[in-house]
Amino acid sequence: MLQLYIGNKNYSSWSMRPWVLLKEAGIDFQEVMVKFDSFDKDSNFKNVVLAVNPIGKVPVLVDDGFSVWDTLAIAEYVAEKFPDKHLWPRDAKARARARSVCAEMHSGFGALRGKCPMNIEAALPQVGALVWRDEPAVRADVQRIVAMWTELLDQYKGPMLFGEFSIADAYFAPVCFRLKNYSLPVPGHITDYIRRVCARPSVQAWLEQALAEKNFVDFDEPYRTAR
Amino acid sequence: MLQLYIGNKNYSSWSMRPWVLLKEAGIDFQEVMVKFDSFDKDSNFKNVVLAVNPIGKVPVLVDDGFSVWDTLAIAEYVAEKFPDKHLWPRDAKARARARSVCAEMHSGFGALRGKCPMNIEAALPQVGALVWRDEPAVRADVQRIVAMWTELLDQYKGPMLFGEFSIADAYFAPVCFRLKNYSLPVPGHITDYIRRVCARPSVQAWLEQALAEKNFVDFDEPYRTAR
Repeated sequence: MLQLYIGNKNYSSWSMRPWVLLKEAGIDFQEVMVKFDSFDKDSNFKNVVLAVNPIGKVPVLVDDGFSVWDTLAIAEYVAEKFPDKHLWPRDAKARARARSVCAEMHSGFGALRGKCPMNIEAALPQVGALVWRDEPAVRADVQRIVAMWTELLDQYKGPMLFGEFSIADAYFAPVCFRLKNYSLPVPGHITDYIRRVCARPSVQAWLEQALAEKNFVDFDEPYRTAR
Repeated sequence: MLQLYIGNKNYSSWSMRPWVLLKEAGIDFQEVMVKFDSFDKDSNFKNVVLAVNPIGKVPVLVDDGFSVWDTLAIAEYVAEKFPDKHLWPRDAKARARARSVCAEMHSGFGALRGKCPMNIEAALPQVGALVWRDEPAVRADVQRIVAMWTELLDQYKGPMLFGEFSIADAYFAPVCFRLKNYSLPVPGHITDYIRRVCARPSVQAWLEQALAEKNFVDFDEPYRTAR
């Protein structure tokens, strides 16, 4: 059976993507939760993860002993392994566009990621308001997200970015939580998309399990002193 | 015909990847060179590139008016469009591993990229020696590159990372120039691989055209005052 190594559900936005993708597609897998203790060489986290991934990061998909790391490579692997699930859009151009926006997420949006780290259980509207006021790079990131989603929702007619749920929605699900929890200002049709993503059973399941965790990881908590 | 928008050949490591890939595969394309003037909103560079890519970056592949941006999305698009070229390794596991290492490159190796920017014509061994002495993060990046290439060359028996030339070699070709031009210390079998990559006609063609450019772009030149 497939195994998916992930970090804490409250914080690990990269882990969330393939987890939600697999759940959404109804693909069976065993979750291997590796809680963040520290990212030092001798931490439990690094010890466990380095055994399956030479770069010591989650998520990692392990298929019968064979490791696939990095969310994009995992998405491609699963899409190839389960072609009947159509995890990428079926149309070649839509598929190319989905890959473009996922790649954009993969190496971009650094300001939003840095200033508004995913923290699923936290409502941080006051922090969000300050970030919005003081960080033009975050505003630029959100502006690009809004433009991208607006165009895709318009072109493919929703309810998801490319019509049906695809890898792209799994890829942007953590961004939905950032926008929502920091109450960053976005237009109504974007709020509606966020609501639809958060209502997916796969995302709900991740959310509920994140809320149940109760771990406080200080290096993932720039804005709170306790959970 | 396919059009590939790229930046200056001497500096643009991201442009180099799909250009080398297409040349190597013998896929016909029209090159659209957009020289770096500045990355300001009103620069010629941004004006030209924004017309084909909403995020205003090169490279962009345009196929009959349809834009594909980001090197990874371009690679996947071309691999799908020309399946007989086998641009990814044919074996499913090798293909997954190639995608993992390309994704690793896509969002990683920030220290090496930041401290040793690609500058094809420049020999900068003294800069390289100082960077090597003072920057543990660069040493760690190179250590990972060496471990990755060693394992792949051993497992797939060379001459390229996955046996035959693949997207992965195009993806790491700019890294070969960084290691070479800054004279960063790597083992002999890694130097041999770098030599084999640099000897590919596609890489030679890029190199020769880079040398012929003669533009000096100050924001890409942290270590020189003139060309």
